[in-house]
Amino acid sequence: MAAISQVTIRRACRDDVGAIVAMLADEPLGSARERIEDPLPPDYFQAFERLDHDPNIRLVVAQDGEGAVVGCLQLCILPGLSSQGASRGLIEDVRVAAQCRSRGIGERLVQWALAEARAQGCRLVELFTHHSRGDAQRFYKRLGFQPSHVGMTLRF
Amino acid sequence: MAAISQVTIRRACRDDVGAIVAMLADEPLGSARERIEDPLPPDYFQAFERLDHDPNIRLVVAQDGEGAVVGCLQLCILPGLSSQGASRGLIEDVRVAAQCRSRGIGERLVQWALAEARAQGCRLVELFTHHSRGDAQRFYKRLGFQPSHVGMTLRF
Repeated sequence: MAAISQVTIRRACRDDVGAIVAMLADEPLGSARERIEDPLPPDYFQAFERLDHDPNIRLVVAQDGEGAVVGCLQLCILPGLSSQGASRGLIEDVRVAAQCRSRGIGERLVQWALAEARAQGCRLVELFTHHSRGDAQRFYKRLGFQPSHVGMTLRF
Repeated sequence: MAAISQVTIRRACRDDVGAIVAMLADEPLGSARERIEDPLPPDYFQAFERLDHDPNIRLVVAQDGEGAVVGCLQLCILPGLSSQGASRGLIEDVRVAAQCRSRGIGERLVQWALAEARAQGCRLVELFTHHSRGDAQRFYKRLGFQPSHVGMTLRF
């Protein structure tokens, strides 16, 4: 079990897609939404190419000392006119591998995203957490987030 | 007073920035965040250039039959791995000019965004509304959105 000090945050590459999708699927909401097959459906790789070529999107992974991917986070830098033209950061798809939770890896990922958003001139970082994820809401409050908004969704 | 049938949705241009910022400022939360000056601070125009060059962002305005800008909406198309690599649509900065509310212009804007998100392959559209905006939450529920998430924010 790697110590938190050995975890590094780095940009995700195509070879990480399988590990990331496995983490996305490994929780109640995600298990119904993802398709874990071997080989993985090509839609995932096409999506990776789209986001990897998007200069406003950073998909990063947390990697332990042995090179295993143990967490992920996507940050989108969104330009807009409101708040005097300040860009916003949107954090999505934060996951930590089940066997590596409660060791500060999620916090390392979110702190990376906050620093990057700040470096890109954002004055606001926002994220959605499902109502059922009380633990996640406590985690984000501890990091300084306020539950200021209602997150509304429409699925086609 | 233009009939709703005369309202058209079109892509925003640089000349619309003043009208859009005036709408962003014309409500309790926005009035504290925006700077309405003549000329408008250059930050707004720099932000417009950034979003206008971003292929994943569409800033649109509603224009009445006399050419006046009476509403705005920003849609971001966000690629990502979750939900089998489906892109998501994020709706932000929806505003309708005070003298033109309750006439279906907001609904026209949101329906435009839903159609565009669907055309871009999104399976999910999401948005944040401030907790204090009960009217907005009822409006979005009527259009099919669910208050499924907590929207968390951190301001620098």
